[in-house]
Amino acid sequence: MNLLLLRPVEIDSSGCVTLNDRRAEHLLSVLKVTPGGTVRVGLLNGPLGQAVVIDIAANHVRLRCQFETAAPKAPEDVLLLAMPRPKVLARCLEHATSLGFAHIVLFRSRQTVKSHFESHVLHADQIHRHLLAGLEQARRTFLPTVTVFQRFRPFVEDHLQVLITSHNRYLADPDAVDTLHQCSPENEPFTLVIGPEGGLIPHEVSCFAERGFQLFNAGPHPLRVEAALNFVTGQLVALRENQPRAER
Amino acid sequence: MNLLLLRPVEIDSSGCVTLNDRRAEHLLSVLKVTPGGTVRVGLLNGPLGQAVVIDIAANHVRLRCQFETAAPKAPEDVLLLAMPRPKVLARCLEHATSLGFAHIVLFRSRQTVKSHFESHVLHADQIHRHLLAGLEQARRTFLPTVTVFQRFRPFVEDHLQVLITSHNRYLADPDAVDTLHQCSPENEPFTLVIGPEGGLIPHEVSCFAERGFQLFNAGPHPLRVEAALNFVTGQLVALRENQPRAER
Repeated sequence: MNLLLLRPVEIDSSGCVTLNDRRAEHLLSVLKVTPGGTVRVGLLNGPLGQAVVIDIAANHVRLRCQFETAAPKAPEDVLLLAMPRPKVLARCLEHATSLGFAHIVLFRSRQTVKSHFESHVLHADQIHRHLLAGLEQARRTFLPTVTVFQRFRPFVEDHLQVLITSHNRYLADPDAVDTLHQCSPENEPFTLVIGPEGGLIPHEVSCFAERGFQLFNAGPHPLRVEAALNFVTGQLVALRENQPRAER
Repeated sequence: MNLLLLRPVEIDSSGCVTLNDRRAEHLLSVLKVTPGGTVRVGLLNGPLGQAVVIDIAANHVRLRCQFETAAPKAPEDVLLLAMPRPKVLARCLEHATSLGFAHIVLFRSRQTVKSHFESHVLHADQIHRHLLAGLEQARRTFLPTVTVFQRFRPFVEDHLQVLITSHNRYLADPDAVDTLHQCSPENEPFTLVIGPEGGLIPHEVSCFAERGFQLFNAGPHPLRVEAALNFVTGQLVALRENQPRAER
């Protein structure tokens, strides 16, 4: 936990908060805080800040918080992830949140195992837990939205254009000719499709291509879903940040 | 398993191989091969190729292999990874192999838990299993070497200069001023340091910096070890591939 996340309602009018849950436990047993010590705090969907430990008793920790005046820039990138198996989904929810995606869309593709949609990882409280872990890891405060589509056709035909507003739309396709560099990423938010382990079927790839997704060839070495998520996002972020320098 | 890996000794003089282990099981129960079907094969530390299924009996699969004349280019990048906890190590060994690292060096840093060096994941057969999984996933044939240093000082003072020959040496450091773009990656192999969850201590960072490692700031959002490995490698690969285009 690199950031202690707090909900606005938890903070009293004097800017103090008393914790007695897993966060208190983490402060006491992992960070081993003592009165006078400081910890990084973040307000859920709000600014970052610092807190001073003002009191410790039994399993309680009381902190006085001071937040920055402005919240960090809210994330805008969108991840469209073919539903992976539950264990991988749990990791991907955390990774995607740490990477700063604003929206995580889980969709069904032909190669998706249908029973994965019944996984307990999709319960609201479980999703929330993994998203929080991603925020705490990466010192972010904005919770991404998570949307689930159990049917591919209504997802692409009815919802896709509403979900994504960015023109930077990418999909790794083993048959694509262009590499990511030739896709000319622009300095704006992107939408990234990560397919299932077995790959998207040609019809699914066409559906995305027809809707403005640029197909790129990520090379001859397929990565596991969670590795591909981090690897390709790293590349997109690097190229987006590098782009104005290279063009000017 | 995206590639069926074979050892040279397994192939008889007629170019055929008979399998009856986990690979045969995978061919039969996951890929559901039938006589006449083809599968992608690779010779360990050698070329890729194709094999035709010529016979199936009980738990045996017999294949006739045809390999390309030349092996793919051998990997050259080096990963210096602060020993993570065993579960993360298992995943990192697989990820690093899939990413194409030639050498994986596990070293002890101040924030490493000493008992992690006694983990069963470090047994030779376990390491080999994770490396094979990484090759099979990414359709690679070259097994990386894995070296373990249980003491930091002899590692940096006596072994580091011998281990790495590349001038592209990178270390993500939260206090660095330059971003990865300003480190001007060259179009050649790189060596990447990935520190422990708790970060390297300043003395360790200095040791690397004194030995030609470029410190870069990877931003204010720390990632988990396995996420950072994939994310930063993605960035280095993207910048290396992009570099001649941007410069010319």
